[in-house]
Amino acid sequence: MAHINLHPAINHGFKPTDENFSGGTLKCHCARHPVEVIVQAQTMHNHACGCSKCWKPAGATFAIIAVVPREKVSVIANPEKIKIVDESATIQRHACKECGVHMYGRIENKDHAFHGLDFVHTELSEQSGWSAPAFAAFVSSIIESGAPVSQMNEVRSSLNKLGLETYDCLSPALMDVLAAHTAKQKGTYHA
Amino acid sequence: MAHINLHPAINHGFKPTDENFSGGTLKCHCARHPVEVIVQAQTMHNHACGCSKCWKPAGATFAIIAVVPREKVSVIANPEKIKIVDESATIQRHACKECGVHMYGRIENKDHAFHGLDFVHTELSEQSGWSAPAFAAFVSSIIESGAPVSQMNEVRSSLNKLGLETYDCLSPALMDVLAAHTAKQKGTYHA
Repeated sequence: MAHINLHPAINHGFKPTDENFSGGTLKCHCARHPVEVIVQAQTMHNHACGCSKCWKPAGATFAIIAVVPREKVSVIANPEKIKIVDESATIQRHACKECGVHMYGRIENKDHAFHGLDFVHTELSEQSGWSAPAFAAFVSSIIESGAPVSQMNEVRSSLNKLGLETYDCLSPALMDVLAAHTAKQKGTYHA
Repeated sequence: MAHINLHPAINHGFKPTDENFSGGTLKCHCARHPVEVIVQAQTMHNHACGCSKCWKPAGATFAIIAVVPREKVSVIANPEKIKIVDESATIQRHACKECGVHMYGRIENKDHAFHGLDFVHTELSEQSGWSAPAFAAFVSSIIESGAPVSQMNEVRSSLNKLGLETYDCLSPALMDVLAAHTAKQKGTYHA
């Protein structure tokens, strides 16, 4: 782990979830007039994500991302600085035009299993107590962003040592949710 | 495991790979004039697959599928009974028109990471010694084909008891191969 920067928020371990925590404010990296987003609930399903689309701080191999009901997410300062990174993506990432930080990701497709949940990076908040990461997803995808193939064993074992199971898609619980949603749409669902 | 039919070839355990085995002949299920395919090599990466496209014997929840270099695969009897199930699929599954059994799957896209490897079901062979299954892939996908969500814990633990790690995509080794191939195409590859 010495020479792999997984993510500053987990490289040296992390605090457990504060069960009494109920939200906070996310700020972009701009020194002046930062975009501010209030999240009025504890987050769920926080995890390290190796996909190429999630925002990562400089030098980090993984993003840390959680979800929260979209109605709990509101922009409270400098909304004019926000742009959507890719309108055609399933998750529309609302980012600061100036510093590039992603403030929240939103799914507008009402037929998607995760519609109603926004994706947020709680490292952008000064508060502590947010849900702790519980697994690492899309681990193999870091290769696509330039991570050396020869380091993959070390990356997976470093994540495991932090208590994070590693998956090359999402976790089994979330993959089952996605498959169940598809089954309902196809008419093949069985409880 | 008592009431979940994972697949007849693994429900009650399976033999290890015979390191000296060098191939055999696959036959479709037709009683008369079966399609026959000779595979002149040992298979690789044999695994249980929960995807909805792989052929499964009646009642089985998973397919058992392995790969072998395409030049080692030849149709030796009743080729006129073969049709491609879906010409537009990445893997073109060559099946018997009469009994529906898939004889081999072939990737014609030369840019695909697995181009050059055919997918075969060695249960169609009378020979024993083929490579043993080593993991289970696309496990959550069985929900899309009608497996009850409430049985998923039991399915995964039954597979684990057989010595098969469960993944909701492919195994980490194969996912890394796919990601490395994508990285090479994007120009982001690092060994």
